[in-house]
Amino acid sequence: MSLMRSWIESANSAKTDFPLNNLPYGVFDDGRGARMGVAIGDMILDVARVDHGLDHALFAAPEWNAVMAAGPKVWAALRARLTELLSDEAHRDAVEPHLIEVASARLLMPFRVSEYTDFYAGKNHAVNVGTMFRGAENALPPNWLSIPIGYNGRASSVVVSGTDVMRPWGQLKGPDEALPRFAPSARFDLELEMGAIVGQPSEGMVSVAEADQMIFGYVLLNDWSARDIQAWEYQPLGPFQAKATATTISPWIVTAAALEPFRTSTPERERDLLPYLREPSPMLYDIALEVGLTPEGRPETVIARTNYAQMYYSAAQQLTHHATSGCPMRVGDLLGSGTISGSEKDSRGSLLELSWGGKEPLALESGETRSFLEDGDRLTLRGAAEGDGYRVGFGDCTGVIRPARDLPNWAKE
Amino acid sequence: MSLMRSWIESANSAKTDFPLNNLPYGVFDDGRGARMGVAIGDMILDVARVDHGLDHALFAAPEWNAVMAAGPKVWAALRARLTELLSDEAHRDAVEPHLIEVASARLLMPFRVSEYTDFYAGKNHAVNVGTMFRGAENALPPNWLSIPIGYNGRASSVVVSGTDVMRPWGQLKGPDEALPRFAPSARFDLELEMGAIVGQPSEGMVSVAEADQMIFGYVLLNDWSARDIQAWEYQPLGPFQAKATATTISPWIVTAAALEPFRTSTPERERDLLPYLREPSPMLYDIALEVGLTPEGRPETVIARTNYAQMYYSAAQQLTHHATSGCPMRVGDLLGSGTISGSEKDSRGSLLELSWGGKEPLALESGETRSFLEDGDRLTLRGAAEGDGYRVGFGDCTGVIRPARDLPNWAKE
Repeated sequence: MSLMRSWIESANSAKTDFPLNNLPYGVFDDGRGARMGVAIGDMILDVARVDHGLDHALFAAPEWNAVMAAGPKVWAALRARLTELLSDEAHRDAVEPHLIEVASARLLMPFRVSEYTDFYAGKNHAVNVGTMFRGAENALPPNWLSIPIGYNGRASSVVVSGTDVMRPWGQLKGPDEALPRFAPSARFDLELEMGAIVGQPSEGMVSVAEADQMIFGYVLLNDWSARDIQAWEYQPLGPFQAKATATTISPWIVTAAALEPFRTSTPERERDLLPYLREPSPMLYDIALEVGLTPEGRPETVIARTNYAQMYYSAAQQLTHHATSGCPMRVGDLLGSGTISGSEKDSRGSLLELSWGGKEPLALESGETRSFLEDGDRLTLRGAAEGDGYRVGFGDCTGVIRPARDLPNWAKE
Repeated sequence: MSLMRSWIESANSAKTDFPLNNLPYGVFDDGRGARMGVAIGDMILDVARVDHGLDHALFAAPEWNAVMAAGPKVWAALRARLTELLSDEAHRDAVEPHLIEVASARLLMPFRVSEYTDFYAGKNHAVNVGTMFRGAENALPPNWLSIPIGYNGRASSVVVSGTDVMRPWGQLKGPDEALPRFAPSARFDLELEMGAIVGQPSEGMVSVAEADQMIFGYVLLNDWSARDIQAWEYQPLGPFQAKATATTISPWIVTAAALEPFRTSTPERERDLLPYLREPSPMLYDIALEVGLTPEGRPETVIARTNYAQMYYSAAQQLTHHATSGCPMRVGDLLGSGTISGSEKDSRGSLLELSWGGKEPLALESGETRSFLEDGDRLTLRGAAEGDGYRVGFGDCTGVIRPARDLPNWAKE
C-alpha cells in the first residue's frame, strides 16, 4: 500500500505518524473542554463537529467506548467517511474550521478502561527472566508453550502518556534480610508492550478469528514494574502491588483497520497448540518499536529497538484464551501483550533484561549508567508500521519518574 | 445492643435477617423495572419513592454506587432517616405504599463492581492448601505473615445470588500427562468468603483507620474455583481462568454501620506487622457463616460452619496494602477476604480442604459423597451476626452448577 494523500499537507509527509492511512482516535482538550479527536498530520480533527454521518450520541462523552460498542459496521463507516472528508478538497471549507493544532492541545485518556489484563507472551522476555530467576534449564515454565499466560492488572492505574509516575513504596526483602522493610522501590523498571483494546463484548467462548474481529485497535503500553516489590510478593498468587503504580498508554488508538496492511504471522510453534488457540491467518503486525531513556537535563539514549512481530502469541489468541472459562469480555478491556524483547541484547524491552538484573549496568550516551530507573528519568516508547513512503505511528508514550512521596507519619516506626 | 422495633411486624422476629438494626441495600425488580431497595423483615422498601431527604440524583440509576460516592455523611443521614421512617408509626401511611414483598421481586446486582480483588488472608485455609501442595513444613509462604496477599480478579464475572454457574472449560494436565487437554473442569469448587465494598476513592496511601472508614459494607461471596485449571496455569503469574467463570455475591449490602456492634479483633500477630499495617482498633466482625450443598432433587447438607472472625487480616488492612504502591482505589471496588476456614475439619470453606484434595470424599446426608462439585449441585452461603434477640443477616448467596457448554466446532481436534 502507498500513501493516501490528504489536503492537509502535513499529513503527506513520510515522517508523520499520522497520514491519512492512519486516522487514529484520541481525546484532547485545547482549553475548551475534552472532546474526541482524530489525528491527521500536525492537526486534530474535532470529529463530533463535522458531518461524520453517525448517531451524535456516539460522541456525547469524551471517550471512544460508545463508538467501540456500536460495532464493526460503524467502525468501517466512520473510517470511510473520515477518509472522504480529509482526502477530497471539496470538503475543505466545511472541515477546516474544526482542525486544532496538536501542539495546542493536551491529550487525555482515549477510552475508559473496563479491565486491564497483562500477558507474558513474548518468548525472548520469558526466557531472559526465567534464566535470571530459575536458571537456563528451567527458563520457560512448563505451561508457557501451551498457554498465553496472563494475569489481571489494575484498570484504575492506567494513565495516558505525559502523566508523571511516582516511585512506589512497598514491602522489600533482600535475599540476606530476615524480614521485609517498607521502603521506596529501588528496582523500578519499564516494560515495552503493545496494548490491544477490546471493542466488542463476549459471553462464552470465542474463536481466534472472532477475537480478532473484536479488537478495535492498539496502543503502545509501558507496564511500569517494581522488581523488588514483585520478588517478595509474587509467590504464590502473582504480581500485585509491583504492577499497580501505573501503566502508561500512548494517546492515540491506532485502529486494526489502519494496521491491516502490516499483518504478519506469529512464529512457528515449538509445541502444537490446542485447537482452540490455532490461528486461521496472520494475526500479528510488523510494528517497529523503540525505547528512549532521557536522564533529567541530559540527552536521550535509545536503549532498545525491537518489533511487535517478536510476540509468540497474538492479541487474538490472548483474548480467546481469556474467554475460555466463560469470563465475559467487555468493551474497553485492555490487553497488554507482555514485554516485547528481541533476540539481541539491544532489543530487550526492560531494564531488568538490559542490565541483566543489575549485574551489567547499561551505559547511556550521557556517560551515566542505569541498572534501574532513577528519579527524573523520562521514558519514551515509540512505534510505527512502515509503509511505502509513509508510516502508521502511535505518537510518543512517555512518563517521567518522580521521587517517592513522603512517608505518612502513621506508616513510620 | 438489642432489637430495634419497627411497625413492620416481620422485622421484629428474632429469625429475620433484616430487622431494623440491619437495613441492607439492594436492587430489585418486581416487574416494574429495576430499582434500589432496602430490606426490612419480609419486605423491600422502594427507597427512591419515600421522603429520604437526599438528592434524587443519588437514586437515578439502579445501583448503590452514587450513594457510596456521596460519602460517609450521606451514608449516616440515609440510615438515620430510614430508621426514623420505619420505626415511627407516624410515617406508616406515607411509607406503606412503597413496600414490596421480597417474595414477589427478583434481586439484582446491588452495585456496579469497578474492580475485583481477591485475597488469601485466612490462615487456616492458607495452611491447609499449602500443606496439600507443598507439605506441612512449607505450608505458609514466607511472605504470608507480612503481607495480606491478594491478586486481581475479574469484575465482569461477578454475579448476584441466584445466577446459574456453568462448569468451565480449560486447559487441564494431570501429573502423569505429558501435554494438556482442553476439557471441562473436573475439580470445580466453591470458596466461602466475605466481600468488602469500597465506598470512597483514594489517591496515594491510606492508613488502616482511613481504609476502615472507606468501606461501605459487606456481602457474602463465593469465589468459584477450578482447581485443575489453576494447578496447570498458576505458575508463575497466579490464578487466571481458574477464577474467571463466576464469583457470586449475596444480594444485600450489609453496611459497616449495621455491623458496628459486632466488631472484634484480628488474632494475635505471630510476626510483628510493619507499622503501616497495624490496626488501631478492632476491625473484624463476629459473623457466623455456613455453606449448604444441595444435590439436585435431594436434601441439603451443611458442609461447613465457620466465622468471619477467623481472618488473619481485616478488609481495612487489605485495602491499606492495596493502595501502598499508589494504586488508586475506586468507589465500587470489591475485595474478597479469601477463603474463611476454621481450625476444625467441619469449618473448612472449600471442598478442596473438606475432601483434602479429593482423597477423603465428603459424605452428604443424601448418602452421596462429594470431592468436588457435580452438575446440579446448589451451593448456598449464609451469614449473620447474632445480637441480643435479633440477627443482622446477609440473605442467601446461592448458585447452581450447570453442565459445561457444548464445545464449539472450531475448538475440536
